[in-house]
Amino acid sequence: MRGRGKLFVISGPSGSGKSTLLAEVFEKLDNEYFSVSATTRKPRPGEKNGVNYLFKNREEFEAMIDNGEFLEYTEYAGNYYGTPAEPIIRHLNEGKDIFLDVEVIGALKIREKMPEAVLIFAVPPTFSELEHRLRKRSTESEQKIRERLETARSEYKKASEYDYIVITGKPGTACSEIISIVTAEKCKLIEREYLLREA
Amino acid sequence: MRGRGKLFVISGPSGSGKSTLLAEVFEKLDNEYFSVSATTRKPRPGEKNGVNYLFKNREEFEAMIDNGEFLEYTEYAGNYYGTPAEPIIRHLNEGKDIFLDVEVIGALKIREKMPEAVLIFAVPPTFSELEHRLRKRSTESEQKIRERLETARSEYKKASEYDYIVITGKPGTACSEIISIVTAEKCKLIEREYLLREA
Repeated sequence: MRGRGKLFVISGPSGSGKSTLLAEVFEKLDNEYFSVSATTRKPRPGEKNGVNYLFKNREEFEAMIDNGEFLEYTEYAGNYYGTPAEPIIRHLNEGKDIFLDVEVIGALKIREKMPEAVLIFAVPPTFSELEHRLRKRSTESEQKIRERLETARSEYKKASEYDYIVITGKPGTACSEIISIVTAEKCKLIEREYLLREA
Repeated sequence: MRGRGKLFVISGPSGSGKSTLLAEVFEKLDNEYFSVSATTRKPRPGEKNGVNYLFKNREEFEAMIDNGEFLEYTEYAGNYYGTPAEPIIRHLNEGKDIFLDVEVIGALKIREKMPEAVLIFAVPPTFSELEHRLRKRSTESEQKIRERLETARSEYKKASEYDYIVITGKPGTACSEIISIVTAEKCKLIEREYLLREA
């Protein structure tokens, strides 16, 4: 007896290793639905429409905003990014769990609309490790790195409203933490109370 | 940075397969502490003091009650059963997680004293499966079986205050659900908020 699906929203600062993590989770969970965001930014080489993003032009995106088609959207560096509501609600109603990769402010907007959403924040074991990773991988200016760290600090503050924190870094650990969170959330009383009512 | 341990209380009606389940969990988790109950009932062949139970006589047990040494205790069929508080609090303070095998009324008493305790109820996939298991294994009278089913019904009602329900029956499933619950509980914000404060 499967009820409604669960919505899992994963966020993490730049340098947290969230993309690698989500790819791992995607490998492990095959019955789940990974939502695709819409954006007005141009596709990068290799990116596919409907796989990496739903690529829209500005007019299309703004029409979707006007129609209330987004769970949340934001404008960043001149481009729109948004989470279309319809496929999410449809899959939840079909009993499918959904994974969303959304930054912190968007995640908190989603929580306002769907209080039952499960919010997971992915971070390295220490903040200095995050800084180290940003500096190591980055070909960016010191100024840009500082901006990223400042953004990360602000995200860490807001993440105190999240449900779970997973720690990235050791291969497999954060992924198995997420799989455990998904399993545990499905064992919660509210999901299985029907078993008690049979008695 | 490990804080205080977590207290997991597992309950399940007679016939739920809880004992087998706890033996499986015990095999998988080696860093955890499984609390031993005290009782005034006589040891059965093969039972060891300090392993299966702390065997006490009535005077000793009542002295422990008077000293407030139990998290919860009950009298059943002429014998006392109780959960000594001291080793539990000591292990929690040392950062160790603890597993308790306590019936529903005792579990709810523990929750009153320790609201942070995680309560897990173990049941077969259906109530008729529980009835089937009780009849199959039982050499007991119909009267006795009905009594057990009545007790189970009352436990199912009270379990609506639990946190999680795990489903016994398929080998390994309930065990891996419990391991996932333990992992997920340790990923909860409250356990890892210190990571956010570093930023």
